[in-house]
Amino acid sequence: MIKISILGAGNLGRHLFNNFIQTKEVEVIQWFNRNINSIESHKNEVSITNRIEELKEADLYLLCLSDDILPEISAKLNSLKGIVAHTAGSVSMDVLSDHENHGVFYPLQTFSKNRAVVFENIPICIEGNNNLSEETLNKLAKHISKNIHAINSKQRMGLHTAAVFVNNFTNHLYQIGNEICEEQQVSFEMLLPLINETASKIESITPKEVQTGPALRKDINTIQKHLDLLSNPEFKNLYLTLTDSIQKNDEHSKL
Amino acid sequence: MIKISILGAGNLGRHLFNNFIQTKEVEVIQWFNRNINSIESHKNEVSITNRIEELKEADLYLLCLSDDILPEISAKLNSLKGIVAHTAGSVSMDVLSDHENHGVFYPLQTFSKNRAVVFENIPICIEGNNNLSEETLNKLAKHISKNIHAINSKQRMGLHTAAVFVNNFTNHLYQIGNEICEEQQVSFEMLLPLINETASKIESITPKEVQTGPALRKDINTIQKHLDLLSNPEFKNLYLTLTDSIQKNDEHSKL
Repeated sequence: MIKISILGAGNLGRHLFNNFIQTKEVEVIQWFNRNINSIESHKNEVSITNRIEELKEADLYLLCLSDDILPEISAKLNSLKGIVAHTAGSVSMDVLSDHENHGVFYPLQTFSKNRAVVFENIPICIEGNNNLSEETLNKLAKHISKNIHAINSKQRMGLHTAAVFVNNFTNHLYQIGNEICEEQQVSFEMLLPLINETASKIESITPKEVQTGPALRKDINTIQKHLDLLSNPEFKNLYLTLTDSIQKNDEHSKL
Repeated sequence: MIKISILGAGNLGRHLFNNFIQTKEVEVIQWFNRNINSIESHKNEVSITNRIEELKEADLYLLCLSDDILPEISAKLNSLKGIVAHTAGSVSMDVLSDHENHGVFYPLQTFSKNRAVVFENIPICIEGNNNLSEETLNKLAKHISKNIHAINSKQRMGLHTAAVFVNNFTNHLYQIGNEICEEQQVSFEMLLPLINETASKIESITPKEVQTGPALRKDINTIQKHLDLLSNPEFKNLYLTLTDSIQKNDEHSKL
């Protein structure tokens, strides 16, 4: 049995709480959040607090906090003996180095408030400053996922950067697709099978191999037609930049 | 029973041939391709030819050809009586206006050579110059898909432009994600659950509502860390352009 305290109640903190509270081998002994009202409804399931001084001894303190307040909160945990781990993609493990045992527990996924998440297949990136930290984090991760990876801080930063491309930036392209559909009065739903196929294809073929379209073909006629159709100068600019990037990448790979 | 001839044996031509040849209510009477060798292996299933003059009478000629040769081939079909339809996203129906009955049959999906496609849920965009053309194309589409839409040439151009954003451009972002992973020596497979979740989310929530990340949060610290990690100047440039576009789009929507 691992005894953990969760600090933070943003999207990730909530999803982890909801999962760990249902996991037999894990005991969530406390949930900390600066705004106690937002976790008030859980007070019958777990001890809640908004005061760091009230934190009890636990095997592990899981910091599900925004990047910028990690150093401040970490400093306030100095009297505690448990392992201190953060859950951030682009923060080095060293931010917690004041603690004898520290590490990182980073689930590589996007979390939304009202959308359930099945952790089973979500990659969890683990880093520990020593065997105890790493093994404890590993054990914790195994209780909710089958997809655990030992990843150092530099690699995790790479994954987080790549995640911005395949998630935030991709979602922005979906949004542009949506706006074009609205302008042309066609349903955005018509694009969903294409979006799904694009995402599914790369499970078996590399993105490089499946690339198609006017940019790669250098089909100037079609490119011009698309630019003529786009009324938003921002979208035109993005179209040109991405087209150029596809072509440069292709030339580079032919060298 | 609809009698059709398929012209062209690219990815779309092949996928449509393979589907229609198995559809009871459709008779594929002929398959034309300029390079006869590439369809030679199907000569026991269908009459094949590489000569326009040898085309027999059919209810419908389905042109699965590259955009730029459509006018040339269309002109050569003038003596035929059947409906002539092309399958292109960004070509107006009018390119076929020499034919009394003409139209468009545009499946909105990405097709790869060695990847089977289930047409059942693929949106098929239909346009016809008169009732006969439109109804025949509609009937044909219904034999392979449950997702048929009457779409005019301008709207189809909009869909095709949007498709470039959500397919070609998105796939390019996947490729960049892949290259970042290679450089950091982590497996690109770790990003697949995130890619899938990003694509699945927008089936129930709009892309605008689910957007997250350092760009939207204006998290300058994280943005700088990502830029520092990216060694390819091309990727840095794209990162900045997309970040800027997300922020502008967000400001615009708050006005």
